[in-house]
Amino acid sequence: MQPAAITMGCPVGVGPEIILRLFDSLTEQATLPVVLGDLGVLQRTAGLLQSKSQPVAWQLGQTIKLGTVPVLDLSHLDAEHLRWGQPVKETSLAMAKYIHRATQGALAGDFAAVVTCPISKKALHEAGIFYPGHTEMLAELTSTSRYRMMLAGSRLRVVLVTIHEPLAKVSTMLSADDILDCISMTADSLHRDFGFSKPRIAVAGFNPHSGEQGMFGQEEIETIEPALRQFTGEAEISGPWPPDTIFYRAANGEFDAVVCMYHDQGLIPFKLLHFQDGVNVTLGLPIVRTSVDHGTAYDIAGKGIADASSLRAAWQMAMKIAENRAQ
Amino acid sequence: MQPAAITMGCPVGVGPEIILRLFDSLTEQATLPVVLGDLGVLQRTAGLLQSKSQPVAWQLGQTIKLGTVPVLDLSHLDAEHLRWGQPVKETSLAMAKYIHRATQGALAGDFAAVVTCPISKKALHEAGIFYPGHTEMLAELTSTSRYRMMLAGSRLRVVLVTIHEPLAKVSTMLSADDILDCISMTADSLHRDFGFSKPRIAVAGFNPHSGEQGMFGQEEIETIEPALRQFTGEAEISGPWPPDTIFYRAANGEFDAVVCMYHDQGLIPFKLLHFQDGVNVTLGLPIVRTSVDHGTAYDIAGKGIADASSLRAAWQMAMKIAENRAQ
Repeated sequence: MQPAAITMGCPVGVGPEIILRLFDSLTEQATLPVVLGDLGVLQRTAGLLQSKSQPVAWQLGQTIKLGTVPVLDLSHLDAEHLRWGQPVKETSLAMAKYIHRATQGALAGDFAAVVTCPISKKALHEAGIFYPGHTEMLAELTSTSRYRMMLAGSRLRVVLVTIHEPLAKVSTMLSADDILDCISMTADSLHRDFGFSKPRIAVAGFNPHSGEQGMFGQEEIETIEPALRQFTGEAEISGPWPPDTIFYRAANGEFDAVVCMYHDQGLIPFKLLHFQDGVNVTLGLPIVRTSVDHGTAYDIAGKGIADASSLRAAWQMAMKIAENRAQ
Repeated sequence: MQPAAITMGCPVGVGPEIILRLFDSLTEQATLPVVLGDLGVLQRTAGLLQSKSQPVAWQLGQTIKLGTVPVLDLSHLDAEHLRWGQPVKETSLAMAKYIHRATQGALAGDFAAVVTCPISKKALHEAGIFYPGHTEMLAELTSTSRYRMMLAGSRLRVVLVTIHEPLAKVSTMLSADDILDCISMTADSLHRDFGFSKPRIAVAGFNPHSGEQGMFGQEEIETIEPALRQFTGEAEISGPWPPDTIFYRAANGEFDAVVCMYHDQGLIPFKLLHFQDGVNVTLGLPIVRTSVDHGTAYDIAGKGIADASSLRAAWQMAMKIAENRAQ
C-alpha cells in the first residue's frame, strides 16, 4: 500500500501543528503517511512545539522512517516572518499547490489517499483562487461532477443532500432525482469504502415528525417517498423517518448511515457525537479523500493546544477505505 | 409540600404501565405522588405486570402509603373489555377528565404539580374534543396565552420558538418579538424553576454556520440579532450561534439552555442525549407542569416492556421546580 498524502492546509492555521501531533503519536512503521507542505514551516513549528518528530525532506519512492515527518517540500515560505492566523497571498498559493500535487499523485497511484488539513476559503479567494471550497477544488482537479459529503465517525455516518444553502430555500431545492442520487452514492460508498455487503440506510424526513401524513409539510410525500421507491440497488433503504429520533436509532446501531436533507439536520447530531474525531469523506471522487472536520482555527494556531484527533481519524479512515477499495 | 398529580393519560396506552413501574421503584415516603386515573384499569394492569405496588382508592387529604398507588378514581371504565392500543370514546373522555381535574387541583393548591402521561391527539379528536394537543388544553384550562415548550434533561435544555410547522414556512413565521418573548420566558424559567441566578442562554441561528454574515440566509441579521439586542433581563444571552456546534457546547456545560428556531433543531440533539429520560416542561403556565417526552406507544402498551425513565424524570423535575418556586 502506498502512503497517504496529508496536505498541510493553510500554513498559518492549525495544520502544521496537528500534523506534528499526529506524527508524535505514531508508533508503527507500516503505514506512515507523508506530508505535502512546507519543510521550513514544519521545522519551525516542530521547534515551537518541542515535537519529538523531525520534519525531513522526502521524495517519491524514498523510505519513510518512524520518528521523522517526511515532507514533500512544495513551497519555500519565509517561515520566520509568517504570523499565525494571518494568511498572505504566498501562504494561500502554497496551500493550493499542496492540494494540486496530492491530487495528481493520488490519480497517478503514488498515494493511497489524500487527507486534507483545513484551508481558508476566504484566504483562497483573496489570493485570486475562486473555488467555493476544498471539495469543489478536488472535484474539478479530478474532473468529477457527482460528489457528496459524508461525515463519518464510529457511531454515526451522515450524508447531505443539500449543504451550504439558506434553510428557507432548501424545500425548493430538493428533488427526487437528487435524493435518489444521494442514496445511491451512499449505498455505493458503504459497499466499496466501508465494506458493508447489505448496508442499512435511513433517509430522514424534512419536516417535524416527517410531516405526519402531510399535516406539517408535503416534502416527504412529494419528493422523498418517490426517491425511496425508485431505488433499486443492493441496500436496505427506509424512510422518510421522523428526523428527531432517527439519529438516536442510527447511533445505536440500527442503521449504517443517514441521508439528510439539509446541513444542520446531519451536522447537529454528528457534531454532538463526533466533535473531536469526526471525519469528512468525499464520495464520488476517483481518489480516496478524507478531511479533518474542523477549520483553520486561526485563533489557536501556534499555541500548542490544537487537538489532532480529527486528523488521526481522517488518516486512519482514509487508509481503511483505500484497503477496502483495493480488495 | 402537596403531592404531584400524575394524570394516567390514555387508558389503553403505556400510561398505566409506566405509572406502576414508577411506584414499584419508589423507596421514600416523603414525596409520593398521586394518580388521577382509573382504579380498575390500574388494578388490572398491576395484576398483568405482577406489580409490587397496590392501586388503592385515594381522596384529597388522605395519607399516602408507600407500597400503594394512590388513585383519585375519576372514571369507571370497563377494564376487562378494553384492548391495549385501541382507544374508544370512553377512554378518550376519561383521559380528558384526568387533565381537567389535575389542573383544577393544581390551581387550587391541592397538587404541587401536574405530571402528564401521554394522550393521543387523534383519539381526543375522534371523541369530539378539539385541542391541537395536551399543552394547548392545559393553556386554555389555566387561561394562559403565553406558553412555551422546554425539553429538559441533565445535559441539555432546549426551548422552541416554533414547533409543529412545515420547515419551509418557519422562516416567514420567525419574528424578533416572538424570539425575544421566547428568550425572556426561558430566562424567567431558568431563574424561577431551575434556580439559576444568572442563567446563560445560547440562541441558535437558523441557517448553516448561522448564515456566515448573510451568505446563506438573512434570518440571523434581520430577525435573531435584533431580538438579542432588545433583551434587557437578568441573564447572559448570546448568539446567534452556528447551530451545528452550539448543542455540543451546551451539553458540555457552557450554557444552561439553547433557544431553538424550529422543532428538529432542538429535538434532534435533545433526543440524541435524552431519548429515554427527557422531560417536557411547559413554561408560562400558572401551575407546574411536566410531561413524559414520548407518546402513547400503543404498539407496546400492556406488554410489560415500557420504560418509566421519562415519567420518573418528569415527576422528579416537577417536584424540584415546585420546591424552587416555593422558595
